[in-house]
Amino acid sequence: MNLNPQRINRVAITAGVHGNELTGIYLVNKFARLPLSIQRFNFETVSLLANPQACLERKRYIDRDLNRCFSSQDLQNETLISYENNRAREINQAIGPKGNPSVDFIIDLHSTTSNMGLTIIPSGDRPFNLRLAAYLSAIYPLVKVYFWPDRKRDSPFLRSICELGCTVEIGPIAQGVLNASLFQQTEQLVYHILNYLDAYNQGKALSIPPTLTLYQGVELVDYPRDRHGELLAMIHPDLHFKDYMPLHPGNPMFLTFEEQTIVYAGKSTVYPVFLSEAAYLEKGIAMCLTQKQQIEI
Amino acid sequence: MNLNPQRINRVAITAGVHGNELTGIYLVNKFARLPLSIQRFNFETVSLLANPQACLERKRYIDRDLNRCFSSQDLQNETLISYENNRAREINQAIGPKGNPSVDFIIDLHSTTSNMGLTIIPSGDRPFNLRLAAYLSAIYPLVKVYFWPDRKRDSPFLRSICELGCTVEIGPIAQGVLNASLFQQTEQLVYHILNYLDAYNQGKALSIPPTLTLYQGVELVDYPRDRHGELLAMIHPDLHFKDYMPLHPGNPMFLTFEEQTIVYAGKSTVYPVFLSEAAYLEKGIAMCLTQKQQIEI
Repeated sequence: MNLNPQRINRVAITAGVHGNELTGIYLVNKFARLPLSIQRFNFETVSLLANPQACLERKRYIDRDLNRCFSSQDLQNETLISYENNRAREINQAIGPKGNPSVDFIIDLHSTTSNMGLTIIPSGDRPFNLRLAAYLSAIYPLVKVYFWPDRKRDSPFLRSICELGCTVEIGPIAQGVLNASLFQQTEQLVYHILNYLDAYNQGKALSIPPTLTLYQGVELVDYPRDRHGELLAMIHPDLHFKDYMPLHPGNPMFLTFEEQTIVYAGKSTVYPVFLSEAAYLEKGIAMCLTQKQQIEI
Repeated sequence: MNLNPQRINRVAITAGVHGNELTGIYLVNKFARLPLSIQRFNFETVSLLANPQACLERKRYIDRDLNRCFSSQDLQNETLISYENNRAREINQAIGPKGNPSVDFIIDLHSTTSNMGLTIIPSGDRPFNLRLAAYLSAIYPLVKVYFWPDRKRDSPFLRSICELGCTVEIGPIAQGVLNASLFQQTEQLVYHILNYLDAYNQGKALSIPPTLTLYQGVELVDYPRDRHGELLAMIHPDLHFKDYMPLHPGNPMFLTFEEQTIVYAGKSTVYPVFLSEAAYLEKGIAMCLTQKQQIEI
């Protein structure tokens, strides 16, 4: 892949990495019925249902989380034979290989039970990704841009196949549920991304704001648990559904089942996201703390 | 069981019939830690996690929906050996047997992804159940009372073990998620029910309104589907989350993925509930239409 892309020749839209996130799944089904909707004059678009068996069973995964199967190490490890490890290799063959992919841009569609609205997660901090995020923020003032710096270089996410691209998260939406408004918002966002790439290829001047508000992940916080790992508390009612809102030192963070408030003991204001995301309970994540940054791009 | 109960001697609180409905599960865990919270002077209360394996795996069920395993026919059919059929027999042994149970009242705790607030589903149309529902509606003006007339006499629901009792549904809440406010509301409702039963046993005069607003189920409606059973549409944005609101003939009901509106073609106004409940997708239910009734009790 060209590090400073001259042009985008092939785009992949992936969905159904998690089989119970229906928004993206039904959107990709629609794109399969109406392929012209995602074609642009200047590039080819392929769409892909990433985890068909999990989609059929409407569950997140069969054996393990597919979106943690894309480290180079795992992709090369033929002894990993779970359904998802096999699918990861097939996907890597179809649109990869990771590091030198046959596509120039990946849009990976997800949904969340957290109140994260329409969230863009750039696939990396390449200026190309950040400019696109800034462009989308300008069109949709409600769009938020979340960034999780991959401290491990060998990222396990599907999006890591390609340096250019983004994950789209939309919420709040329960697993296994379709919400027509959120479906339409996601669809329009995908078209805006494709139109942006099309204009980029044509060298058209795009109106990109000079700064971008970025919520950069700094810490994953688990629920309070007992020594057996059992939950002791829930997200505090004052914090519930307050994704992207400031959490100041001393603010209520958790409420135990016995109604004791546990406050945020950090030293500086943070902005939690993925607040009580259902799928993260098993991962030991109650929320992800972010820092709000204005960056110049 | 006494048809016009002289007194309530034993109450069962059940939860975790569906292993991904966390509100009731963590509430019953709390009751197990603090058993005095559910004891009353006049009766004994037992609490029960109905589907422990599904709770452990945080999924609705292992083999089949436990809350469809309590028909007398199934309970007596020893050739049904699924995990849930076995659990149904164990529960029937612990608090039944159905028709002549060792408990006098069952409170079964559930949650829903639909926007149904705090909903009471009386276990049957016995005046005792309806008076309790009216009492709770008076305390909580936001409580709604939904009733599904069991046209089949051999009801498959857990609550059918005992003629007195109710199911509590709370929502909207995603499967696998805890919402502290909804947890507290459910807890308070349980205490109000227990206090009511306690006062009843003592012959105390209870302030019960003379009428009750009841949403009586009349029809289950599936999503529009193609001949392969694939979904063609979602709940229309105008109807999404509008549980218990009037749906008039001609009002938008579904929106196809191609953005065609499908209107409600019925002849009279109805009040949908369980709108796009996640667990009902596989059952072929997009919503349950109800009629709003004022009944004298």
